[in-house]
Amino acid sequence: MSSQPSHPALLIPGPIEFDDAVLQSMSHYSESHVGAPFVATFGETLSMLRKLFQTTDPASQPFVISGSGTLGWDLVAANLAEPGDDVLVLHTGYFADSFADCFETYGVKATQLKAPIGSRPQLPEIEKALKEKKYKLLTVTHVDTSTGVLSELNALSELVHKVSPETLVIVDGVCSVGCEEIEFDKWQLDGCITASQKAIGCPAGLSISMYSGRAIKTFQSRKSPPGSYFASFKNWLPIMQNYEAKKASYFATPSPQLIHALHTSLTQILSKPLSERFEVHRQTSQRIKKAVTDLGLRQLASDSADQANGMTAIYLPQDIKAPELLPNLLKKGVIFAGGLHKEIATKYIRFGHMGVSVTDPKRDDIDRAIKALETGLSDAGYQKA
Amino acid sequence: MSSQPSHPALLIPGPIEFDDAVLQSMSHYSESHVGAPFVATFGETLSMLRKLFQTTDPASQPFVISGSGTLGWDLVAANLAEPGDDVLVLHTGYFADSFADCFETYGVKATQLKAPIGSRPQLPEIEKALKEKKYKLLTVTHVDTSTGVLSELNALSELVHKVSPETLVIVDGVCSVGCEEIEFDKWQLDGCITASQKAIGCPAGLSISMYSGRAIKTFQSRKSPPGSYFASFKNWLPIMQNYEAKKASYFATPSPQLIHALHTSLTQILSKPLSERFEVHRQTSQRIKKAVTDLGLRQLASDSADQANGMTAIYLPQDIKAPELLPNLLKKGVIFAGGLHKEIATKYIRFGHMGVSVTDPKRDDIDRAIKALETGLSDAGYQKA
Repeated sequence: MSSQPSHPALLIPGPIEFDDAVLQSMSHYSESHVGAPFVATFGETLSMLRKLFQTTDPASQPFVISGSGTLGWDLVAANLAEPGDDVLVLHTGYFADSFADCFETYGVKATQLKAPIGSRPQLPEIEKALKEKKYKLLTVTHVDTSTGVLSELNALSELVHKVSPETLVIVDGVCSVGCEEIEFDKWQLDGCITASQKAIGCPAGLSISMYSGRAIKTFQSRKSPPGSYFASFKNWLPIMQNYEAKKASYFATPSPQLIHALHTSLTQILSKPLSERFEVHRQTSQRIKKAVTDLGLRQLASDSADQANGMTAIYLPQDIKAPELLPNLLKKGVIFAGGLHKEIATKYIRFGHMGVSVTDPKRDDIDRAIKALETGLSDAGYQKA
Repeated sequence: MSSQPSHPALLIPGPIEFDDAVLQSMSHYSESHVGAPFVATFGETLSMLRKLFQTTDPASQPFVISGSGTLGWDLVAANLAEPGDDVLVLHTGYFADSFADCFETYGVKATQLKAPIGSRPQLPEIEKALKEKKYKLLTVTHVDTSTGVLSELNALSELVHKVSPETLVIVDGVCSVGCEEIEFDKWQLDGCITASQKAIGCPAGLSISMYSGRAIKTFQSRKSPPGSYFASFKNWLPIMQNYEAKKASYFATPSPQLIHALHTSLTQILSKPLSERFEVHRQTSQRIKKAVTDLGLRQLASDSADQANGMTAIYLPQDIKAPELLPNLLKKGVIFAGGLHKEIATKYIRFGHMGVSVTDPKRDDIDRAIKALETGLSDAGYQKA
C-alpha cells in the first residue's frame, strides 16, 4: 500500500504520480552541497543518467541543473548555437514554437518546418530543407506534449548525418526520456534535454540533459561567449565533471533533496532492463489507444506510427468540451489535462501514462482512468455512433 | 523531537537545517501544476512573500522560479539592464565578481567598487562613483556569504535616490532575506533576489525575488528584448500575476513539492512578528560573536556594524587550516563551511546561524557548535594567547 494520502490519480503528461520512496527522498535531511555524502549522491546520479540514455561514450556529458525542462532550451540555444547561426526546428506542436522563440532570444535564426496538427515533418521534406541551407543544428520534439505525436529519431538522425553531417541532432525529450526508447550513442544524437517530472518519475525542479562529445566540442570552439549566465556550459561543465568524479565543486547551489529523489528514481528504473520498461509503456499505451478507439474517439496523432507511448491526445466528441468533462473526471478520482495546442485547445484532452502508473502492478490508475473516461463521456450524454 | 534521522547539524551559510514540517511538505503527493489546489498554494506563497519583504505596494512583484539563487542575477541582468548600459556593483567578496560576470554576459558594463576583505564600500566613495557616471542600476550584496559582511541598505538607498534618482537599487539578499531586516517599500528598494535554502528555510531549488513597480516599468520600457529566455520577465510576469490571482497559467512547469515546502516555511515565519525573528537572529549572532572573541579569534568583518546576523566568518589561528579543522568538527556532529574568498580560502571558516537552528528553542545546534569549535581548536593544539 502507498504511504501517500488518498488523492486523485494524476494522469497528465507530467508531472506524473511518484513512487513512495521517491517522495520520501524529497524529505531528506539537510546536507551540505559540497559535503562528501551529497557529492557521492550527485556523482552517482550523473553516472546513472548515462545508463538511462544508453550512452557508454566517455565523451558524453550529462547535466542536472535546478530549473524546469524549459531551461534545456536555453542550454542548447545559448551554448550550441551562436548569434547569426541558422537552426532547423521540426514542428509538431506548441513546444517547437517556444524552442524557436528561445533560439531567437539568443540571436539564433530558427527556421521551423511545420506539419499539420497530429502529424510530423516527413523525411523527404527534412532532406530538402537540409540541402537548402547550412544548419548548425536541428531540433526534434521526441514526444510533443501538446499533441502526443511521437517522432522517429533513428532514421531522422541517419538522414541528418548523411545529408548534412556537420549539423548537430538535438532532441527535446521532455516527454519521452524514461518511457520511449532512446539510444543516444547508437542513434548518434548530439543532445537530449528533458525534465525530472515526466517519465523519469521525480518531482519537477530539475533540468536534465545529455550531450555528445561532438556537441561539447562545438561548444568549446565557439567564437562568441555563451549567451546566458545561468545556462552557460562554461559555468556548469566543470561542475558536472567534478561531481561525477566525486569532487566538491561550486557554481550555484544544487537542490540536495531533488537530487536524492532523482537518485532514487533512477535506481528504481535501472534495477530492471530498460527494454522491459519501454515494452510495458508500449503495451499499456496500446491498451489505452484501443479503449479510446473502442469508445469511437480519434487521436490527434492519426497514424499509429506517430503515436507516443507515454501519453494519448484524444479528440472529444463534437458537443463535449474539455472544460466540462475534466471536472467530472476529477470527481471520479482521475486528473487528465486539457488541450494545449492553441487552435484546438478545448476540443481535446490529454491522458498521460508514464512511470509508476504504468510500471507498478500494485496500482490500478490506468484501469480507473479508462473507466472514468467511459463513464464521464456517458454522463455528458455521449453515445458511440 | 525531530522526525528526521540523526545527522550532523548543518551550520553553513546555506543550505541550513530545515523544520520537520517543511521537509514533510517536500513529500507532498503529485499535483497538477495548473490544478486549482496547487494554483491556490502557489498564489498564497507569492502573497506571503510580499509580507516577508514588508511591501504593501500593489505594484511590487514577487517571482518564484525553479532554479538556484544564481538565477536571480540573470533575472536582473537580462531584464532590468540593456546591452551597453552601465551598472555599479558594490563589491564585498566573491559574489560581486560573479554578479559582474553575469552582467557582462548580457552585454551590460559592470563597474565594481571594491573594498578591502572584510569591509564594504563606504557611502562617500559610492556617492563619488554615482556622480561620475550614469548607472542604470546599482547592486549591493546585503550579506556576502563569502565574508559575512553586512551592508547597510537604508542609508545606501537614500544616497542613491538623492544623488542619482533614476538608478535602480538592487539587493542580492541570498544570505539575508529571512534573517536580516528588509523593508522593501520604506527603503525604496527596486529589486531583491534570494534563494529558498538560506534564512527562508526551504530546501534549495527556488529562485525567489521581489521587484518594485519602478523596476517593472523599467523592464516594460526596454528598447531591446530581454537577453534570456528562461529568465525573461516577459515570459514569467504574466505567470506570476496569474498564479497570485489564483488563475492557472503556463510557461514552464513549477515544482509543486518545493512550492509546498516554501508555503509551509513562509507560514511558519509569518506566524510571529518579523521583528521578533530578526531580533532572535541578532541576539544569537551576538552570542556567537562573543564566543568567537572570547576564544581569541577575529572575524573577517572587523567592524561590528558590518557583521551579518545570520553567519560569522572567522579567521583561524595562524597554524590551523580549515581543511584540517572541519573534519574534526564533523566528527563532533557539526558542519561548518570552509572559506570561499579565493585569496584567503584556507585561512577562515564560516558558521551559518539562520532559521530553525536559531529560532527553534527545542534545538541546541548553536550551543553544540560553539562547544565543538572550542574543543576542535583545542584538539588542534590551539591555546588562547
